[in-house]
Amino acid sequence: MTYCVAMKLDAGLVFLSDTRTNAGVDHVSTFRKMLVFERAGERVLVLLSAGNLALTQAVRQQLAEARDTETLWNAKSMTDVARVVGQAIRDVYTRDAKALEAFGVDFNCSFLLGGQIAGAPSRLFQLYSAGNFIDASSVNPYFQIGESKYGKPIIDRLVTPATSLDDGAKCALISMDSTLRSNVSVGLPLDLLVYEEDSLRVTRFASLDDENVYYKMIHDTWGARLRQVFNELPEPQWATTCVESAPASLPPRAAPPEGVPGAHEAGSVQSLAQTVALKMPS
Amino acid sequence: MTYCVAMKLDAGLVFLSDTRTNAGVDHVSTFRKMLVFERAGERVLVLLSAGNLALTQAVRQQLAEARDTETLWNAKSMTDVARVVGQAIRDVYTRDAKALEAFGVDFNCSFLLGGQIAGAPSRLFQLYSAGNFIDASSVNPYFQIGESKYGKPIIDRLVTPATSLDDGAKCALISMDSTLRSNVSVGLPLDLLVYEEDSLRVTRFASLDDENVYYKMIHDTWGARLRQVFNELPEPQWATTCVESAPASLPPRAAPPEGVPGAHEAGSVQSLAQTVALKMPS
Repeated sequence: MTYCVAMKLDAGLVFLSDTRTNAGVDHVSTFRKMLVFERAGERVLVLLSAGNLALTQAVRQQLAEARDTETLWNAKSMTDVARVVGQAIRDVYTRDAKALEAFGVDFNCSFLLGGQIAGAPSRLFQLYSAGNFIDASSVNPYFQIGESKYGKPIIDRLVTPATSLDDGAKCALISMDSTLRSNVSVGLPLDLLVYEEDSLRVTRFASLDDENVYYKMIHDTWGARLRQVFNELPEPQWATTCVESAPASLPPRAAPPEGVPGAHEAGSVQSLAQTVALKMPS
Repeated sequence: MTYCVAMKLDAGLVFLSDTRTNAGVDHVSTFRKMLVFERAGERVLVLLSAGNLALTQAVRQQLAEARDTETLWNAKSMTDVARVVGQAIRDVYTRDAKALEAFGVDFNCSFLLGGQIAGAPSRLFQLYSAGNFIDASSVNPYFQIGESKYGKPIIDRLVTPATSLDDGAKCALISMDSTLRSNVSVGLPLDLLVYEEDSLRVTRFASLDDENVYYKMIHDTWGARLRQVFNELPEPQWATTCVESAPASLPPRAAPPEGVPGAHEAGSVQSLAQTVALKMPS
């Protein structure tokens, strides 16, 4: 499996990818899923990939060979770049999909593509197996591919376009940490690339393994602080409720069939008190 | 969709379920997914269901009718109870699966079953569409069915068998809140049932809607406190790295094809500093 996330913030772009691939739990390997196309001062393109590794590598190879007239190196706009990547996916589909089908293998690959070309703002796209794509926006400033669900809630809670690049990177790492904990098929090391708007070159990149001081801090501290916040939240207070006054709050019950005793002592059920004793954080 | 979670703690059992069902986004309804079988002083059984609503209702109906010799009301152990539920699933399969197949509908239903029968400890099971089941244990003290991934990381971080019932309920509600934020097909009201070990009756139950004071507190406070903790975590510090000393940290790059300029200024790439300035919480 894979987890990749990319954010389109006002201040630039954030990219984070893991490196684990597996073909069954007994065949786990490490491959980097981030590929950078940079002509400093003119364009920076970053491609993250998820799905069938043979397919994503074939697409990357197709893009790197750049045999068509329009390539990642000369496409005039980011939308044109996305079309070039989409066409590469379709070329691989034409070549491989039928053979894969004979083995019952889906044509499964997806990409995140972000970057900037001189003279226009940065953009971020998500591309599907069919080569079509969608564009990030201010109401949806991030995309994920691969094992996306475990790491989604924290981004939903924290990231807006106004989020700084450092906060975006921090949030991406927390999102990745949650994913790593819940899915063993996502794994270290991580590739983190932070692109500053209008820099038109790669200025911040880190490959993070379990020795990395910052990632270790995130891993250790986030969990500990979450527990602290959790402990500070008030416990539910249960209060005996008069059943007559709150019949709707009773749990749905199955009545026993005729002749089977099933005494219900519903009058003793407590429901949540309608007040909350907020503790102050210690 | 659905999200149900149940925990088997040393102090008892916690059950939480949402109530949203949908057949396409234009057909959303509210159904309760929690069913209680209680004979106070002798047994308490709680069944949570996810999957095709017609199937889960058919299974519940089959169990409530209790036409077989062995029923939920007379099964001697919790394992026997799980077998009774498994048999009900298989009976519904025998009756319905073929007709569903003609319409391309999967036989898709799953259940969480927890409870206690006098004389033995409480147990918690997860049952699959095939009627087979697994048992919660001290290393895996909780199960989820339905839309489980968004709400899993927080439980993985916080819940162990030693967790108190109130903390279990609080964590289940936070897990549900994260799920509600990330998947519109999971919705209020919620059914929360907390079972105290050896009480052999339902003593704590609440149906929570968006007016519920405790759930509102969880919803508002958890997000705000998360943001606070997030802001207290140190930002990544970037430091210029000598490329010669750390070549492995450079991002994978595609070289431009022959004749295409693609100047790499790799020497200017900064990587994460190997120190972290921990801020103290304010």
